[in-house]
Amino acid sequence: MSGNKKISMAVIRRLPRYYRYLSDLLKMDISKISSKELSQRMGITASQIRQDLNCFGGFGQQGYGYNVESLFNEIGNILGVNDKFNVVILGAGNMGQALANYSNFEKRGFNIIGIFDVNPDLVGKEINGKKVLHFDEFEEFIKNKRIDIAMLCVPYEKTPSVAEKVASLGVKGLWNFSPMDLKISHDVIIENVHLSDSLMVLGYRLKEKLRKDALAEAKK
Amino acid sequence: MSGNKKISMAVIRRLPRYYRYLSDLLKMDISKISSKELSQRMGITASQIRQDLNCFGGFGQQGYGYNVESLFNEIGNILGVNDKFNVVILGAGNMGQALANYSNFEKRGFNIIGIFDVNPDLVGKEINGKKVLHFDEFEEFIKNKRIDIAMLCVPYEKTPSVAEKVASLGVKGLWNFSPMDLKISHDVIIENVHLSDSLMVLGYRLKEKLRKDALAEAKK
Repeated sequence: MSGNKKISMAVIRRLPRYYRYLSDLLKMDISKISSKELSQRMGITASQIRQDLNCFGGFGQQGYGYNVESLFNEIGNILGVNDKFNVVILGAGNMGQALANYSNFEKRGFNIIGIFDVNPDLVGKEINGKKVLHFDEFEEFIKNKRIDIAMLCVPYEKTPSVAEKVASLGVKGLWNFSPMDLKISHDVIIENVHLSDSLMVLGYRLKEKLRKDALAEAKK
Repeated sequence: MSGNKKISMAVIRRLPRYYRYLSDLLKMDISKISSKELSQRMGITASQIRQDLNCFGGFGQQGYGYNVESLFNEIGNILGVNDKFNVVILGAGNMGQALANYSNFEKRGFNIIGIFDVNPDLVGKEINGKKVLHFDEFEEFIKNKRIDIAMLCVPYEKTPSVAEKVASLGVKGLWNFSPMDLKISHDVIIENVHLSDSLMVLGYRLKEKLRKDALAEAKK
């Protein structure tokens, strides 16, 4: 139903969130929900929800609401939660190791089939049952296996060149953890995770809150 | 100048990005830039940039563009990059250890002053020069030190109760890594990092790309 319809990136980026909330509702044995109730839980407007869910067929029925399970399954299908992706981790430092040990990704179909580094202290080490290989072996490795996604956990300066290299060898999806909006010459899909941006926003919001609290306190 | 003006969250969330791009420009010795050039680099419209930067005074001069260094400094001031925050990490598993070892946060003024866990295999262990303390010691710990931010890297089910606990003891900022939109009863600032959401979006976009590539190939 949704396969050939163009869904905007803004909607796509909200889908995992719908998926999480619907999963929670299922766990609570809630089988139907109105856009209004869902709106209150999620903190987005009911009209936004109706508009979003209309994008892929809209499963709401006037006066009944949404069937939680079928909506959950449909969003899961759109997101491809039953698809399988072969993933490699590039960079076996702190973040690479954290990702390698994070079991949730495998549950979601992202199978980590290789971990690479150049640091002799890390190459050969076993992380979550997988031996870290030298990045020099990557070219041979990809000849024998399809690799869909590379998780980039290499140092900042090396990120663009490593990304170019693996993209030139056929990797089509990059998950970048360096604090940059990665751009490369190859036609690939890149998602950036900006941890520092998130922390800076937290710092800003916290500072504003403390300032307002202090003002309110002074007025008492 | 900007201290008392209300800046929308949407603008705030873009500020770290401006900050990164301006930092790169400074490194390249570029001292002025037009909204059009910045727009091309950042992939957002020039009018959006002008509108955003107008929110806090607007440093552009007609026909000259923006002074990179003063814009960089002003955004840095707004974001509070020179402010200092005392941070604890709750949960010394994979993600907690990765964050503890991530030196960039300290450079940005987020000083990690304590790491806590309940797992006897982790308590007492040293991570980046800091001994992991038992979470039971947290209440005593916070009596003697101001803690601004808790980075929550505890298991999913425990996240809400741990968040309530530390908020009740006075922590005002929470950086949550569990795949949920954390809500608690206390008046605190919460930023959620949704790694799984990001990975699911990457999976979706990649699947769409491969589908389109295959269609284009079939038409040849």
